[in-house]
Amino acid sequence: MQLRDLVNDQPAHLVLLVIDGLGGYADAEHDSELEAARTPNLDRLAARGSCGLALPAGPGITVGSGPGHLALFGYDPLEHDLGRGLLSALGLGVDLQTGDLAARGNLATLDDGGRVADRRAGRIDDDRARSIVDTLQSQVNLEEAEVSFRHVSEHRVLLHLRGEGLDPRVADLDPQRTGVPPLEPTATAPEAEHTARLLRELDGAIREALVDEDADVVLFRGFDTLQELPSMQERFGLRPATVANYPMYRGVAQLVGMDMLAVVGSLAEQIALMSDHWDDYDYLFAHEKGADRAGHDGDRDAKIAVIEEVDGLIPDLLDLGPDVLAITGDHAAPTQLSAHSWHPVPTLLWGERVGRDAVESFGERACSGGMLGHLRTQDLLPLMLASAGRLEKYGA
Amino acid sequence: MQLRDLVNDQPAHLVLLVIDGLGGYADAEHDSELEAARTPNLDRLAARGSCGLALPAGPGITVGSGPGHLALFGYDPLEHDLGRGLLSALGLGVDLQTGDLAARGNLATLDDGGRVADRRAGRIDDDRARSIVDTLQSQVNLEEAEVSFRHVSEHRVLLHLRGEGLDPRVADLDPQRTGVPPLEPTATAPEAEHTARLLRELDGAIREALVDEDADVVLFRGFDTLQELPSMQERFGLRPATVANYPMYRGVAQLVGMDMLAVVGSLAEQIALMSDHWDDYDYLFAHEKGADRAGHDGDRDAKIAVIEEVDGLIPDLLDLGPDVLAITGDHAAPTQLSAHSWHPVPTLLWGERVGRDAVESFGERACSGGMLGHLRTQDLLPLMLASAGRLEKYGA
Repeated sequence: MQLRDLVNDQPAHLVLLVIDGLGGYADAEHDSELEAARTPNLDRLAARGSCGLALPAGPGITVGSGPGHLALFGYDPLEHDLGRGLLSALGLGVDLQTGDLAARGNLATLDDGGRVADRRAGRIDDDRARSIVDTLQSQVNLEEAEVSFRHVSEHRVLLHLRGEGLDPRVADLDPQRTGVPPLEPTATAPEAEHTARLLRELDGAIREALVDEDADVVLFRGFDTLQELPSMQERFGLRPATVANYPMYRGVAQLVGMDMLAVVGSLAEQIALMSDHWDDYDYLFAHEKGADRAGHDGDRDAKIAVIEEVDGLIPDLLDLGPDVLAITGDHAAPTQLSAHSWHPVPTLLWGERVGRDAVESFGERACSGGMLGHLRTQDLLPLMLASAGRLEKYGA
Repeated sequence: MQLRDLVNDQPAHLVLLVIDGLGGYADAEHDSELEAARTPNLDRLAARGSCGLALPAGPGITVGSGPGHLALFGYDPLEHDLGRGLLSALGLGVDLQTGDLAARGNLATLDDGGRVADRRAGRIDDDRARSIVDTLQSQVNLEEAEVSFRHVSEHRVLLHLRGEGLDPRVADLDPQRTGVPPLEPTATAPEAEHTARLLRELDGAIREALVDEDADVVLFRGFDTLQELPSMQERFGLRPATVANYPMYRGVAQLVGMDMLAVVGSLAEQIALMSDHWDDYDYLFAHEKGADRAGHDGDRDAKIAVIEEVDGLIPDLLDLGPDVLAITGDHAAPTQLSAHSWHPVPTLLWGERVGRDAVESFGERACSGGMLGHLRTQDLLPLMLASAGRLEKYGA
């Protein structure tokens, strides 16, 4: 049985609000950020709906935003490994198409013997690196593929190739240490011989272009090609769109077939944008980045403030008239760790058919006893569909 | 490791009481039906045992009684898709054997050009339809298979074929619309050519038999053959029997190898029947249909009354002396929806070795915090076996 076989076309509006990095944990000194925040609107929704704790990729697994969002969109993030090169490209707003190849790379210097001298080209600064990337972009070309370079930060660059028959099964060029020469582009599967040959040609062109620059070579690693993902239309019969405003989240949304609405600033503006397009879609994804940023910064007060700000916008969100509303995060980002973490993410589902559980406030410990239980993040989408009356019965 | 490898033959009695459609949910106005019902006996059992919330086929999936019961008997209902034709046949009490083919069909009328005029033969009534089915039964025969027809309701009939080499991979004959001719029986796999040929022959014989009737043709759809399921004896080392009284539940029980004891009326009579056969079996399955019926009817008071009636019989059930007693439903059937639903089903496990959790009453929200957690329904059977001392240690 495929979930798709059960989907009907009952009209209904499903809204997913992702508070990026929402999850946290209490310790000897503090409640979690969400528990500490004053959130009367979220608490009211929690009391009227059902809650649970979601694990994006299983117990103990800390995920990046890519897999975290794939799970929220109903995909198994372990089955669909997007690869870091692709996620970097999405984060930079690169327009990826099926079959495109992406890789990360370091600007690096070589010694007179052609061995890696510095894997970060003397910790080159952003301005110098950007100018080098401009040089690469203007001087490096291949006959058999479109080449583009993007600056990421400091010595980090991104390679994006578009052409026929690209295959990611090519070994890294980065030897990960100094005093040895960069590795030759080598296919690890016969189907990738063409790609390895292109990369050898590319490497030669890069070295030539960099002769007078502060870097001599680009050490590439992590080659990925964009595999086509089955769309949310195909898998769940939805007409989805996103009002998210950061390239990476828009990119992941686009990968699963969401329409990308205009780029606006705040969550309040995202809600207004949803309103403008309310009749065109039945699944809308909004995204608040601030909680994750505060999590990375280890700034507890800032994370609490972001959550309280989101809380203040819940009435506007409800005014849109969604049939089902899910509010959660793509992963935890506790300020104690200043990083993403594996802790389960508080998850709230609201709608007329959802049912009320015993949870009266939105927080990690409260959600632990909720009716959604300890769920896989990817199971949220089927629950949203069911609560919207979009799933038929299985079997008689 | 197979569970079967761990099963010992320790004598013990396991009893499963299914309150069909037990699950529900609280909303702004009401507690769930189970929460609202006065159930002193079930509450006492809940306090002395452990509780949880069971999902028959995963988050968001609403199941029919067929898959719901398969899960209760320890089978993965998504792996063993019984098909609607088979489940209809079981519901009618048809004696299915491995390899038998079943399909649902509509009595329909054709226009002068042989195109479907009415897919329900003018919404034919039960009496006329029954008489047409009698005609079919007496006049339609095949040389290479036994043919039988059963009336289901109104225009709906069931086809049951028994013979060598039947294969369900045949496309539907029902075009699902009017103004076009019925579809030819067509094999969708080479192995089904024989079956498709038989169905073409059958179609001809049916048209001939119906020449003077109010219907001209039967539009078949959903062909299934009965695949053999591994029995509960093989899988769990049990000697199982059922005292259920509805054909469908008896049918599913029979599919997994249960002996079918006499058909009696009420749950009280089922309990008496269990008592008569207590020494012959170590797994007994009783079934109360009323809660599901009330759920379908959207009759909250009736559902509460059925649950309270079941509660009154719990002392009799305990008097039998089961070592382990599990009480749950095959799916939720909230009266708010007048239908089956995806909501998790309260589940109670009682026995000397079960252990007590913090749950003090039997209800959805109480069970949400129970020691059985949020479990897959199919995991209840291993828990019953373990609690009965029927499972050995795995590994040293």
